[in-house]
Amino acid sequence: MRAVLDKRQPDLTVLLERVHKPHNFSAILRSCDAVGVLEAYAIPAKHGIPDLDEPEGLSLQGKTYNETSGSAAKWVGLHLHEDTVSAFTHLKARGFQVLAAHFSERAVDYRVADYTRPTCILLGTEKWGVSPEAAELSDGHIQIPMMGMVQSLNVSVAAAVILFEAQRQRIQAGFYEQPRLSPEHYEAVLRSWVARHERGRG
Amino acid sequence: MRAVLDKRQPDLTVLLERVHKPHNFSAILRSCDAVGVLEAYAIPAKHGIPDLDEPEGLSLQGKTYNETSGSAAKWVGLHLHEDTVSAFTHLKARGFQVLAAHFSERAVDYRVADYTRPTCILLGTEKWGVSPEAAELSDGHIQIPMMGMVQSLNVSVAAAVILFEAQRQRIQAGFYEQPRLSPEHYEAVLRSWVARHERGRG
Ligand SMILES: C[S@@+](CC[C@H](N)C(=O)[O-])C[C@H]1O[C@@H](n2cnc3c(N)ncnc32)[C@H](O)[C@@H]1O
Ligand SMILES: C[S@@+](CC[C@H](N)C(=O)[O-])C[C@H]1O[C@@H](n2cnc3c(N)ncnc32)[C@H](O)[C@@H]1O
Repeated sequence: MRAVLDKRQPDLTVLLERVHKPHNFSAILRSCDAVGVLEAYAIPAKHGIPDLDEPEGLSLQGKTYNETSGSAAKWVGLHLHEDTVSAFTHLKARGFQVLAAHFSERAVDYRVADYTRPTCILLGTEKWGVSPEAAELSDGHIQIPMMGMVQSLNVSVAAAVILFEAQRQRIQAGFYEQPRLSPEHYEAVLRSWVARHERGRG
Repeated sequence: MRAVLDKRQPDLTVLLERVHKPHNFSAILRSCDAVGVLEAYAIPAKHGIPDLDEPEGLSLQGKTYNETSGSAAKWVGLHLHEDTVSAFTHLKARGFQVLAAHFSERAVDYRVADYTRPTCILLGTEKWGVSPEAAELSDGHIQIPMMGMVQSLNVSVAAAVILFEAQRQRIQAGFYEQPRLSPEHYEAVLRSWVARHERGRG
């Protein structure tokens, strides 16, 4: 556990804006775990998606989610926010730049963004994408070059492609070489992981 | 259509070894389309996965697959092979290096491989991964660095991360700047796309 915690990046995260398919949600948390994201953020899909099949949206404590998560959910802290504004307020107060994965006039190639800065990557919902509100509040828009007939990638694919570019930049910058958490934070997370692990076996 | 065909890469492909979840399968074809893969290869899941829920495996002509494919399947030619050996024989005869996305002693970081060579990326089945047979036949093994608690990525995520590294290298090498298909091949594919498009509207 310490070996993993030594590489956790408190200043790299994602904000999932109403991503509602459990397999996408859990694939994204798996990728977060793999690049060392300490905590992820989500605005549950319950509200605000007109044609959502599941009226309850993603049940985050529910069975489907945990079953498909391949256990990544245990190791990436998940914070829920009721709406876009409150998530942004929280992230900005902590000094994150929010980069929306979103096609727009402002969008730049995702490879030119600087992910060594404290960065939150915003992903939009499967069908409708990033909300106009969130696009507006974001510090920048990034896009993955599409050279085919189809207009967009699967959301968990888009998240991963960007996260592994962030990983690449952070490997180069030496960010995985020593712990990035303060000693107090480190010990607190370690205690919670140990507790979770014990519960998982109980 | 010509704008897309101008960027198609006849010498970049994937081989999906018994990937059987339709959402993974279609997310991979969507990523293939986005990086300009002309044709993809698959060994259907029907045979050889002990605990497959769907006894018929992925029905490639079936509804589920086409519905979730976001139409990428229309624009990436899919070749099916009954078994691993016949797929490898076909690919090697065409001069492809086959790189297995697979953890092993031989595996190197996926970022050091040279994707400007004619390259096929081999992906394994969700639960069991790449078969020992295919691992053995591959020219090399590549792995995406994992820094978390979970041992592997979702297969469509792994495919995309590698394909977009290939895209990055091929952008740098100027591979998307002019058509890479011979004029005859180009016209043949164009005719088949036009026909498919017409049918799609009929
Ligand atoms: C399936 S897409 C939504 C498509 C929606 N029709 C739109 O135009 O935004 C779901 C999310 O994946 C991310 N995404 C998909 N393809 C992307 C790309 N090429 N570049 C950046 N983000 C992408 C975005 O965050 C998007 O909101
Ligand atoms: C879910 S994984 C299979 C895991 C299986 N337990 C194993 O150990 O191979 C499905 C496929 O995704 C690909 N994959 C997943 N994570 C990968 C990584 N970090 N590097 C390279 N390929 C990966 C491989 O092709 C693998 O066969």
